[in-house]
Amino acid sequence: MTRTPALALNDTLNLVPFVSVDHMMKLVHAIGLERFLTELADYIEEDFRRWELFDKTPRVASHSAEGVIELMPTSDGAAYGFKYVNGHPKNSREGRQTVTAFGVLADVATGYPLMLSEMTMLTALRTAAVSAVAAKHLAPKGARVMAIIGNGAQCEFQALAFKAVCGIDTVRLHDIDPAATAKSARNLAGSGLRVVRCSTPQAAIEGAQIITTCTADKQYATILTDNMVGAGVHINAIGGDCPGKTELHRDILLRSDIFVEYPPQTRIEGEIQQLDPRHPVAELWQVIAGKVAGRKGAAQITLFDSVGFATEDFSALRYVRDQLAATGHYADLDLLADPDDPRDLYGMLMRAA
Amino acid sequence: MTRTPALALNDTLNLVPFVSVDHMMKLVHAIGLERFLTELADYIEEDFRRWELFDKTPRVASHSAEGVIELMPTSDGAAYGFKYVNGHPKNSREGRQTVTAFGVLADVATGYPLMLSEMTMLTALRTAAVSAVAAKHLAPKGARVMAIIGNGAQCEFQALAFKAVCGIDTVRLHDIDPAATAKSARNLAGSGLRVVRCSTPQAAIEGAQIITTCTADKQYATILTDNMVGAGVHINAIGGDCPGKTELHRDILLRSDIFVEYPPQTRIEGEIQQLDPRHPVAELWQVIAGKVAGRKGAAQITLFDSVGFATEDFSALRYVRDQLAATGHYADLDLLADPDDPRDLYGMLMRAA
Repeated sequence: MTRTPALALNDTLNLVPFVSVDHMMKLVHAIGLERFLTELADYIEEDFRRWELFDKTPRVASHSAEGVIELMPTSDGAAYGFKYVNGHPKNSREGRQTVTAFGVLADVATGYPLMLSEMTMLTALRTAAVSAVAAKHLAPKGARVMAIIGNGAQCEFQALAFKAVCGIDTVRLHDIDPAATAKSARNLAGSGLRVVRCSTPQAAIEGAQIITTCTADKQYATILTDNMVGAGVHINAIGGDCPGKTELHRDILLRSDIFVEYPPQTRIEGEIQQLDPRHPVAELWQVIAGKVAGRKGAAQITLFDSVGFATEDFSALRYVRDQLAATGHYADLDLLADPDDPRDLYGMLMRAA
Repeated sequence: MTRTPALALNDTLNLVPFVSVDHMMKLVHAIGLERFLTELADYIEEDFRRWELFDKTPRVASHSAEGVIELMPTSDGAAYGFKYVNGHPKNSREGRQTVTAFGVLADVATGYPLMLSEMTMLTALRTAAVSAVAAKHLAPKGARVMAIIGNGAQCEFQALAFKAVCGIDTVRLHDIDPAATAKSARNLAGSGLRVVRCSTPQAAIEGAQIITTCTADKQYATILTDNMVGAGVHINAIGGDCPGKTELHRDILLRSDIFVEYPPQTRIEGEIQQLDPRHPVAELWQVIAGKVAGRKGAAQITLFDSVGFATEDFSALRYVRDQLAATGHYADLDLLADPDDPRDLYGMLMRAA
C-alpha cells in the first residue's frame, strides 16, 4: 500500500491507462474476489484514517424528471479523483442499469489523468467493502450471521465482503421478489457461505447479529419496523441513499447510535433525513481513527447509515491503479494532446494532415 | 444541426464512442479546419441563443500549490456535458501541456454517456470559435485586420476562426518571444491570411479593427495600456482567465462596453476582476438573442472579456458527436457494465471467470 500515486505507467505523456468493464472483471479474477474486497477494504480504511487531509465537497448533481447525473470529486493533495454516476430508476424497465459509473484518478502535481476506469462494477465492490469496514468497527464481536433484505445487484457483494472482512459464515436472504432471492442464493452457492432463503423479513433477521438493508427504488419504505430490531444488532443500511428514499422506521433510528460518512450529505440523502437536523451522529472516520468509540456494549444498536462518498471512490480508484502494473489489465487511451512544443498545438494538428 | 442528441451510435449498451486526440485531428481534416470552425461557431451561437434553457453552475475547482483541476458541467435538459480541465503553468517547463482536457456528453433521459472525447484540441478550437462568434456581433462592420498579441497555442486557431467566421484577411502578430511569432507565422503561411510580424504591441495594433490578446502565465500583466487603444476597435481578451491573471490596463475597461459569458464566473476570473463588482456588463447571449444591442456606433470600444464557459464545451461536444456517424472517427469503449439482468451484476462478474 502506498500513499504516493503519482508515477505514470508509461513514458508516453498522451496515453492514459483505461480499465474497461472487461478489464475490471479480469482484474477481480486475477486477484480473487475475496482478496480484492479485503485489500480494497484496507485502502478504504486507510483513507478514512486520514480523512482530514481530503478536500471534501458535496456531490455536484444535475437533476431531471427521469433521474440524476452526479460528479463526485475529492483530493488528498497528491491525487485527485472523481466519479461520474447516474441514477435513473426507470432504466431497469428498459434493460439498462439504474446506476452506471466511471471515474478518473489524476496527479495533483501536473493535472494529468493517471487512469480512467469503469466504476459500475467497482462501485458495487467498494460499497460492499465500505459496509464491511464499518461493521468491523461497529458490529458485535463474533458476529457470524447476517440478514440481507433486498437481494438485488448489491446483495452478493455484501455477502462476500462480510465473509472476507468480518468472518460472517451465514447469510439469511429475503426479497419481496422470490426470484431475486433465488438468484442470489444460486450465485452464492459454492462461496463457502451458508445461505438461508427466508420468506419474510422477520424470518431473515432471526438470529442475525448484522442486518443489511439494500432494497432499491422505494419511496419512504419501511423495510424494518421498530419491533423487528432487537438489542445488540448492527444495522447496515445502504438502500436509502437519496432524498425521499429511506428503508427504516424512524423509531429504529431513535434507538440506535448512528454512524455516517459525511454528515452534510447524509442529512439530505440518508435514513437520518427523517430526523431533526441536529440529531447527534458520529462520523465513521472518527471511529476508525480512534477518536470516537464504536460499539460500547452488547445491548447497543449500531446503525451505519451509508449513502456513499467521494473518498470511497477515490480509495477504490487508488487500489485499482496500484494493481495495473502487475496485472496488465488495462489499455492505453490516446486521451491527451502532447505536442513536441506545448505552444505549437496548431502545428501538431497540421502535421497530422 | 439538431437539438436532440440522444440516440446511441450503436446498439450495444456497454459501448461508448471515444474520440482520441488522433481521431479529433482526423475529424478536423476530414471536415476541413475552416468549415469545422464555422460549423462549430454555428452550434455555439445556437446554444447561446437558448442560454436560458441551460443548467448553469460555476465550475467545481480543486486548487493546489501547483495548479487547478476543474469540472465544468452543464445541461440543456436533453443532453448533459462536462469537461475535465487542468491548469498547471509549470507544466510547460517539464514538457507537458499547461492545460489538458477531456469531456463527456451524456443522455439526460438515461444518464448513459453518449461520447467521451479528448478536449485539449477541441477546447483550442471552441475558444477560437467563441471569440469569432462574439466578434461577429461586436466588431466594426467590414473589419479585415486583426492584431494578435500572444502567439502561443491559441494564436493560429484565433486567426483561422476569424478568417472563416468574420472575414478577417490580415493578422498582425506580436509576442515577447520572437520565436513564438515565427512559429505562428510559419504555421499560417499558406492559410490565405496576410501575416505581418510585429516587434512591438504598438506596431501590431496599427490599423487593426480587432485586437486579440491571448498571452499566458502572466500575473496582472498589462499587455495593452490605455493610450494604445483607439476609438472603434473590438478587443477580444482571452488570456486573462483566472484570479490574479489579467492582460488589460484598468483604464481600457472603463472606456469599453464590456461583454461577458457568465457574470458570476467572469467577475472572479476575467479582466473585470479589476473593477467594482457592480460595474455594468452585458452578457454575450443577450446580444446573440437580440435582447441587448451589440455595437452601437463607429467610435465605441467593445470588449469581449472571455474566460470560457461550460455551455461552450457542451456545444463543442454536441458538434463533434453529430459528426461521428458520418466520419467514423471514433472507437467504441467498453465503459459500462451491462448485465443481461440488471439485478445480476455479480452473476455477470462470475460468468466472466
